[in-house]
Amino acid sequence: MSHHIIADLEKRHTVKHYDAAKKVSKEDLTIIYEALRLSPSSINSQPWKFVVIESDAAKQRFEDTFANKFEFNKKHAKAASHIILFAHKTHYSRDDFSKIVDNSIKIGRVQPENREQAFGSFAFAEMNTDANGNTEAWTKAQTYIAFGNAMHVMARLNIGSTAMEGIDAELVGEIFKEELEGYQCDVALAIGYNEPESDYNAALPKYRHDLKDVLTVI
Amino acid sequence: MSHHIIADLEKRHTVKHYDAAKKVSKEDLTIIYEALRLSPSSINSQPWKFVVIESDAAKQRFEDTFANKFEFNKKHAKAASHIILFAHKTHYSRDDFSKIVDNSIKIGRVQPENREQAFGSFAFAEMNTDANGNTEAWTKAQTYIAFGNAMHVMARLNIGSTAMEGIDAELVGEIFKEELEGYQCDVALAIGYNEPESDYNAALPKYRHDLKDVLTVI
Repeated sequence: MSHHIIADLEKRHTVKHYDAAKKVSKEDLTIIYEALRLSPSSINSQPWKFVVIESDAAKQRFEDTFANKFEFNKKHAKAASHIILFAHKTHYSRDDFSKIVDNSIKIGRVQPENREQAFGSFAFAEMNTDANGNTEAWTKAQTYIAFGNAMHVMARLNIGSTAMEGIDAELVGEIFKEELEGYQCDVALAIGYNEPESDYNAALPKYRHDLKDVLTVI
Repeated sequence: MSHHIIADLEKRHTVKHYDAAKKVSKEDLTIIYEALRLSPSSINSQPWKFVVIESDAAKQRFEDTFANKFEFNKKHAKAASHIILFAHKTHYSRDDFSKIVDNSIKIGRVQPENREQAFGSFAFAEMNTDANGNTEAWTKAQTYIAFGNAMHVMARLNIGSTAMEGIDAELVGEIFKEELEGYQCDVALAIGYNEPESDYNAALPKYRHDLKDVLTVI
């Protein structure tokens, strides 16, 4: 199929080796950040925080998180242009949602007299909250929408990326405690440009199941 | 920002009222299906199944799933052009992964002599498997990557969409038991074209947190 959307998705692959000398441009970073910000989420909850690792000092700290596990991803810490930590709030509360409502009033999305009504959809968050106020199954899912959105954006921008669930969530939480502000990071996206000779995955055919094995129209 | 990627994401909104007379074209459906198929996933596990509700009979069945809960989403069942059920395998096994490996061998992605080595990444699935063989936290996350990808695709195609976590997973599981083949559906995407006069959300400004409140560059 020759459609440009399909071409974008076909050409993207998991980068296995980055060229440390090539950096994502300021212009592209601005687009990526804005695209992350615009990601959709359930009841517009936006229960996320994105920490972008750009400086050498931050990359060193990220490299340090591989001390105990997932060493296969360690090399991306310094070779990728940037690494984005995708973090979610584990205890999303009515207070968090009130920021959405009140700012929606400020921009004219919600009329002030409808403030209480605007909390109606928060019932959905409550349904996804356990007895201890934990919402993480739900908020993490929203962050994966942003993650899927981000990978599509990288494909459109011709920027290579590596999805990394193979990070030490505990150590990432410790080492980036200040920036994460209590949010939980279980997944990161390395971005940059590959080194074609060493990035063996670039040359390999992509494997996906046949459409008939994953999709049924009824 | 005037970049076309940002324009796509800015113009998309959650459709609150569909025009039942307007259908997504065959051409666009073909692109959507292929884009779903091409979604990335951890260790290329592809632990998903997409059930596309197109016929009046299937729409009636989907409408029937709102008998007990989430009545606010019921109206989309018949008014949307299509509804896509996003389902994940709750017990992803080595057998499932062997299909990935063996088909990767068939297309030349993996050399036959490296078959055992290709199972190396399955350790990651095992780490996400509980004592009962349950993998759902992990496989559901992958399906949300496809979900985020799909929403971006709809924006590019100028097709309206409504993300629906507000579905009765139990009734959906019962009523679409045959098509889901044991996969778990917790989320669906209605797609189609809105009825501008009744789709109040189309005219409202989009609210997202300021960039500084969700993203930090270090």
